[in-house]
Amino acid sequence: MNWTTSPCAALNANAQHEAEAHQAQLTKPTGSLGRLEHIAIQLAAMQSTAKPHIKKPYIAVFAGDHGIAIEGVSAFPQVVTGEMIRNFARGGAAISVLAKAQDATLSVINCGTAYPIESLEGVLDFSIAAGTANFLQSAAMTAEQCAIALSIGKKAVETALEQGADIFIAGEMGIANTTSASAIACALLDRTAADLAGNGTGIDAATLDHKVKVIAQALRRHNTELTSPLAILQHLGGFEIAAITGAYLACAKEGLPIIVDGFISSVAALLAVKHHQEVQQWMFFSHASAEQGHSIIMQALNAHPILDLEMRLGEGSGAATALAIIKLACELHNNMATFTEASVSGAGI
Amino acid sequence: MNWTTSPCAALNANAQHEAEAHQAQLTKPTGSLGRLEHIAIQLAAMQSTAKPHIKKPYIAVFAGDHGIAIEGVSAFPQVVTGEMIRNFARGGAAISVLAKAQDATLSVINCGTAYPIESLEGVLDFSIAAGTANFLQSAAMTAEQCAIALSIGKKAVETALEQGADIFIAGEMGIANTTSASAIACALLDRTAADLAGNGTGIDAATLDHKVKVIAQALRRHNTELTSPLAILQHLGGFEIAAITGAYLACAKEGLPIIVDGFISSVAALLAVKHHQEVQQWMFFSHASAEQGHSIIMQALNAHPILDLEMRLGEGSGAATALAIIKLACELHNNMATFTEASVSGAGI
Repeated sequence: MNWTTSPCAALNANAQHEAEAHQAQLTKPTGSLGRLEHIAIQLAAMQSTAKPHIKKPYIAVFAGDHGIAIEGVSAFPQVVTGEMIRNFARGGAAISVLAKAQDATLSVINCGTAYPIESLEGVLDFSIAAGTANFLQSAAMTAEQCAIALSIGKKAVETALEQGADIFIAGEMGIANTTSASAIACALLDRTAADLAGNGTGIDAATLDHKVKVIAQALRRHNTELTSPLAILQHLGGFEIAAITGAYLACAKEGLPIIVDGFISSVAALLAVKHHQEVQQWMFFSHASAEQGHSIIMQALNAHPILDLEMRLGEGSGAATALAIIKLACELHNNMATFTEASVSGAGI
Repeated sequence: MNWTTSPCAALNANAQHEAEAHQAQLTKPTGSLGRLEHIAIQLAAMQSTAKPHIKKPYIAVFAGDHGIAIEGVSAFPQVVTGEMIRNFARGGAAISVLAKAQDATLSVINCGTAYPIESLEGVLDFSIAAGTANFLQSAAMTAEQCAIALSIGKKAVETALEQGADIFIAGEMGIANTTSASAIACALLDRTAADLAGNGTGIDAATLDHKVKVIAQALRRHNTELTSPLAILQHLGGFEIAAITGAYLACAKEGLPIIVDGFISSVAALLAVKHHQEVQQWMFFSHASAEQGHSIIMQALNAHPILDLEMRLGEGSGAATALAIIKLACELHNNMATFTEASVSGAGI
């Protein structure tokens, strides 16, 4: 686990300044491309080049089941986690479509489903167990399971880098994982279950009320154990949430830019940042999720998501949608003419 | 001018219902793709098909100069309008880059610049005059000029349709055109110059104060003449604003979906809608501009832009950025698997 506390890669301030200077020379009023300018400059600092690029986006979707699902906190049966893994692999899921449309590599990683699934092309089987334990009864994971799950994320980032990835998106699938993520966020931010629990995949008011009670009870049960971000992850988390946390930590250590997805991924981002603050400088935040607790996570990170499209699907779908915007920001930054090149008056106005 | 009041094409309610039913069958919790679902359904109604598509986006950038520029209301000299037309044609402007990156056709239409420019490949010369008249002294256009400018927009839409366009973006370029657009919006909405005037390309506080006074004076001067949207356009508008208004009217009549850009284009949209209310059902609103008055225009239209990236460049750049999102909405709608196809449990949840 020592790797999780090793230093993060540094941003390149020179590249950032060069990119800023370049932006000021492009044929437009200064600042008129708004956040598209900032995105390109931020990516320049991450990629150590005045001309940042996205040629090989890499999407890793981590799937895992949650013991807490038995408490009736989700609208969907637990069998759906495995069914969706098949759907990812066959190209029918939202993230599959978004990846294909943008020439992104899509890797699906089974971290442990409740029901066994057959070997599938495009799906890596890194099953830790048949789902986590019910965290109303015990810790969701053993310390060893949590460490393995973190390392699965690290391994995914290493694979991405071997394949030349220049930006990394993590997605997730796991029935009941908003319950786990909400509980984690409560513990990290000292907020109540009612603040963080939302409708997830679409539960009714009575189920939401029950979900709030389940989370509150779990927080009371594990209260004395929730002494660090990784302890919180172990007691309340999921295999896929731990894997994403590990992936973010690894990205920051390797200097691979991250696009953070919605609620679940943002909780993993919060975990990673609480564990190691410098991780955040490697993150773009893609979208404001419609899931209730997401805005609280964004506030805690002082993050301003790129998109607000009322999405709440997960899978990495919001990040993969924002990818299109980040790619266009690079196109503009790299391919617009300067005032001098275009003989346009008014540079520096 | 009779063409501007002829009926608009009707949306196809059957196609809309089919698209809605299709969305409900896709492998995701109902509504979880948020606005991406609504965009696809809206486009289905416009394109009369349950499977909407964007294969041939068409961008027309209309350029024109403004007599009001002589009052010192812009940060840039008037020669920039022509210089930017050259930049559009050579591929160096933001809209050129965004068009190329997304395989959109880019057509540049010179409606009348203050300084003559040479013949350029990719630029249509429809010059009406060497810019509009200074609307502090007289009407910006004669009634005949205004009618010609409207018809330039109509002609652009006809050309787009001949080339198989399935969605239309209008952009604009014209030094001082935020002054003209602000004045129009004041007259249409009965608001003050201080409400609608903003920093445009980046004027300082003193120039903004002057700009507000110029607009207020113009509104007083023409007060009794501002009796209809087209009269307001004629007295306070620009050739390019009139052309965009004409283009929007023509799109609605021909049933070609529109993506409205930022402040100037939104004022043209407001003009078109005030002239003929049904035009609005053919419009997507692309982005919340950083230009001060834009939110007032959006409120007046009850419009909720897709993006909020603090852009304020014009040229159609915000609309061309939102194009990427609308394309992804179509990809998801058309290419995701249904619950039945993917054997995933929980359809209709």
